[in-house]
Amino acid sequence: MRIITISREFGSGGREIGKRLADVLGFDYYDSEIISAVAKNKGLDKEYVELNLSNHGWQNVPISFRGTIGSTAYIQSSKIQLLIEQKRVIEAIAALGKDVVIVGRNADVLLREYNPFNVFVCADTETKLKRCRERAKEGEVYTDKQLIRKMKYIDKTRAKTRALMTGTGWGERDAYHLTLNTAGWEIKSLVPIVAYFSDLWFRGKE
Amino acid sequence: MRIITISREFGSGGREIGKRLADVLGFDYYDSEIISAVAKNKGLDKEYVELNLSNHGWQNVPISFRGTIGSTAYIQSSKIQLLIEQKRVIEAIAALGKDVVIVGRNADVLLREYNPFNVFVCADTETKLKRCRERAKEGEVYTDKQLIRKMKYIDKTRAKTRALMTGTGWGERDAYHLTLNTAGWEIKSLVPIVAYFSDLWFRGKE
Repeated sequence: MRIITISREFGSGGREIGKRLADVLGFDYYDSEIISAVAKNKGLDKEYVELNLSNHGWQNVPISFRGTIGSTAYIQSSKIQLLIEQKRVIEAIAALGKDVVIVGRNADVLLREYNPFNVFVCADTETKLKRCRERAKEGEVYTDKQLIRKMKYIDKTRAKTRALMTGTGWGERDAYHLTLNTAGWEIKSLVPIVAYFSDLWFRGKE
Repeated sequence: MRIITISREFGSGGREIGKRLADVLGFDYYDSEIISAVAKNKGLDKEYVELNLSNHGWQNVPISFRGTIGSTAYIQSSKIQLLIEQKRVIEAIAALGKDVVIVGRNADVLLREYNPFNVFVCADTETKLKRCRERAKEGEVYTDKQLIRKMKYIDKTRAKTRALMTGTGWGERDAYHLTLNTAGWEIKSLVPIVAYFSDLWFRGKE
């Protein structure tokens, strides 16, 4: 059983690397599937779970949800419940014993005992902006300044969640086997080499 | 002409990767050769230049040298002269137009216009301690605590020198194409894959 985890800065292309890597290697792939499972297990709306967990802090939960639930304190506590459920889902994925690529959600630390191969994907701001623009949903009208603020906010939330759940730093170089900067690369061209790298790692551990 | 630069945490094995990489690729290799050239050009003792530039701050210059020169302010200013000479030496190496691996000394930033492939090598403290122990000169009697202090001090000096000369951060993930964590690897096994990675990079830029 081999587990590859991909942590990434927002907009760096980490998710695409993860997806392509899973395709190339024939591994199962988990990303938003984890959110779906958490939502299902908790009997909640997927969008609500995603807003709360995935990228956005509780500050961003729409007013309509806030109204329903009542107080900020409740939302905070509910977020922690969701994180605990997310942790359970990730552990259950590992317990299946299959080869997997997991994107985000601190799987590298949560599944430490399985000796996963851990990749962090980053890029400079300009590269990430360009990527966000190319992948923007139709009708999205962020200015560069707004997009940069969004990227920073999401990464900051990821760092906070990581600190909360694992007590370790997010994006700190010695927490990952490999830190990849996608600036100047075509994402596709990086995939075979990351696959080879991980293979080398797993063969060394056999 | 292809330039590979290796920046590294003290004790991480970055120098060994650089040396082996140059051997495998048939590139010229520069590391302490740069110090020798600076010393020669300035008519100074190599050990003196090394103490001043390479790893140690002016605080560590032996009393005997301090005595000769007179004042701390003079040593500081002399250090800057040495850094300027070092910059000249690195630019002269690049101007030769040959394929090279350069270890340390901010060559990644100084030679930015040549579009080098930039690698940062790191490891966790335990791995670095082990490596330092294995490579200790005979009669070296540091405690773990002393060694850790030394490692931190050297890395801090490198970060300071980088900030001074380039205005950029040291070890920041988006400043390098690749950040490699040597923990759990045999250094030798990493070399072919870094060679392949750099080759992919240079072919993409042709």
